[in-house]
Amino acid sequence: MFENASRTELSSLGEFGLIEHLSSGFSISQNTIKGIGDDAAAIPGPDGKITLISTDLLLEGVHFDMSYFPLKHLGYKAVVVNLSDIYAMNGNPKQITVSIGVSSKFSLEAIEELYAGIKMACDRYGVDLVGGDTSASKQGLVISVTAIGEVEKERIVYRSGAKPLELLVVTGDLGAAYCGFQLLEREKRVFLNNPQHQPDLAGYDYILERQLKPEARKDIIPILENLGVVPTSMMDISDGLSSECFHLAKASGLGISVYEDKIPVDPTTYNFARELELDPSVVALSGGEDYELLMTIKQEDYPKIENHPDFTVIGFLTDKSEGMNLITKGGQKLELKAQGWKAF
Amino acid sequence: MFENASRTELSSLGEFGLIEHLSSGFSISQNTIKGIGDDAAAIPGPDGKITLISTDLLLEGVHFDMSYFPLKHLGYKAVVVNLSDIYAMNGNPKQITVSIGVSSKFSLEAIEELYAGIKMACDRYGVDLVGGDTSASKQGLVISVTAIGEVEKERIVYRSGAKPLELLVVTGDLGAAYCGFQLLEREKRVFLNNPQHQPDLAGYDYILERQLKPEARKDIIPILENLGVVPTSMMDISDGLSSECFHLAKASGLGISVYEDKIPVDPTTYNFARELELDPSVVALSGGEDYELLMTIKQEDYPKIENHPDFTVIGFLTDKSEGMNLITKGGQKLELKAQGWKAF
Repeated sequence: MFENASRTELSSLGEFGLIEHLSSGFSISQNTIKGIGDDAAAIPGPDGKITLISTDLLLEGVHFDMSYFPLKHLGYKAVVVNLSDIYAMNGNPKQITVSIGVSSKFSLEAIEELYAGIKMACDRYGVDLVGGDTSASKQGLVISVTAIGEVEKERIVYRSGAKPLELLVVTGDLGAAYCGFQLLEREKRVFLNNPQHQPDLAGYDYILERQLKPEARKDIIPILENLGVVPTSMMDISDGLSSECFHLAKASGLGISVYEDKIPVDPTTYNFARELELDPSVVALSGGEDYELLMTIKQEDYPKIENHPDFTVIGFLTDKSEGMNLITKGGQKLELKAQGWKAF
Repeated sequence: MFENASRTELSSLGEFGLIEHLSSGFSISQNTIKGIGDDAAAIPGPDGKITLISTDLLLEGVHFDMSYFPLKHLGYKAVVVNLSDIYAMNGNPKQITVSIGVSSKFSLEAIEELYAGIKMACDRYGVDLVGGDTSASKQGLVISVTAIGEVEKERIVYRSGAKPLELLVVTGDLGAAYCGFQLLEREKRVFLNNPQHQPDLAGYDYILERQLKPEARKDIIPILENLGVVPTSMMDISDGLSSECFHLAKASGLGISVYEDKIPVDPTTYNFARELELDPSVVALSGGEDYELLMTIKQEDYPKIENHPDFTVIGFLTDKSEGMNLITKGGQKLELKAQGWKAF
């Protein structure tokens, strides 16, 4: 209609800039406790508790590649990545809804595989499938999952509660899922060049599993409770450690210093990154899809987690004016870059 | 891998058969009150109330046609159709989450239009936007909306509570949205043949608005309360009256008789259907996207709604053995067919 109407490319804002921009005109008028800007929304729940809601949209060709992602694994992963957002609020998931759009290229047997994976995740994590729909799609497979969970009022953890000098703590190890992704992409390229090629994935089980069948840190919630620790802030690592550090720092209005030599990396991840001539620390900082939990705890809580194998202290929170810093293995102070997965 | 692996086409089951099939292996282990099979799922809510959750996935080229559906209207409609599911449980929506997948063909300005429509719906219906995400899409526009609502325990209405001889009641009028859709499709065909063509939509405002800017029956919930009526069963009409009659009858284990001459049809709908040489009753029975409420009430409640302009009694519930029947204007008894929108 208007030849000269202004056109701004979505890519100019980035995924998070876009969400922020689009939701800026909205206000809260209902009983919402926490809206946009955390891993999950929070509303009043039963028996004085808080109900948590998180939702994700997974699109073929953007979030997953059907050429090497088995449908059963895809169904499992689609659920798990949503549950991870509920754990990131220190809560426990109870229900999910799943809506799918499928093109006619999928047979019933294929969709049954997808649902077998969804069911496996429901069973393992103890959540009920309570709704959703199926529809035709002209555009490949679309999966939308909403997770609903609960948390006690006094145990809910937002991204925004950190204070200067508190400790930055991460669960498990990082970078493995990204290495699994790179391995699968490599094998795909080889296969496309030589369809007779049989993939040799022996020895890479760990990084493949972290990519194809990730787990959410359900175990961490009771562990924190048993240790008597309520993190001051928390989120899950889906886009990569450095990107999440930026979110956490921004939400709390602080700076962060991360020690490169403290970042936990599994030997398989380390070796595969080296094989690809990638810096294992960069892989761990920027890889994404780890679904580990990133949290801050008070210094006085340090003795409680000190000897626990699931937690690693990787840095500390600073005043905002000190910025975002990576202390390298050589002792250099570099500016930390947010290099998470870019949606656009 | 298996050359002879069996392949069943999804279309062989139909949308509802598919949901039923896929969800059949799942069981409920959490505090879920009502899972799959109603307009919304029900879980324990605050202050002894029930929290309702409903979700929908809208795909470009399947659920909407970008060539004539303005983005602002699309955003509005995407929210409204979800809220309708909460009203269908006799509840009030409180929050929504919206996730979108957008391809690079969309500018920021286009997505702002979409969100302007979403905001308009949030304002009009008094709901908070509390979450969601945006991502790239290789496949056109994908919109996933989840609506969260509340209802008092003693006022929740399922699809399954109807008893024989109760009255079948519908709000508003039917078939208009389908006529609006047919009108837009007709104008699109004319435009494709002759791009100079200016659409002449004068006089068709009502059916266009029912298609492009439908409203959910928010007003009905307090009206029912003020009239002192709790329907024995209820659902919204998204797929067409006859299809919904089948759902209601099936959920309650009953049969239904509908009187053709009682089905409320607006004059604009009637005239446009005639113009297209369609039977207005067929349009009203099979059109879909009305977002009116279909309910059953006890005979003793009839005097309470008798003179209310928003309600029309269109039939009654029968024993299952009597089946699904349409009593025609000529007094004939025909078998009612479920001819709702087919997803596959």
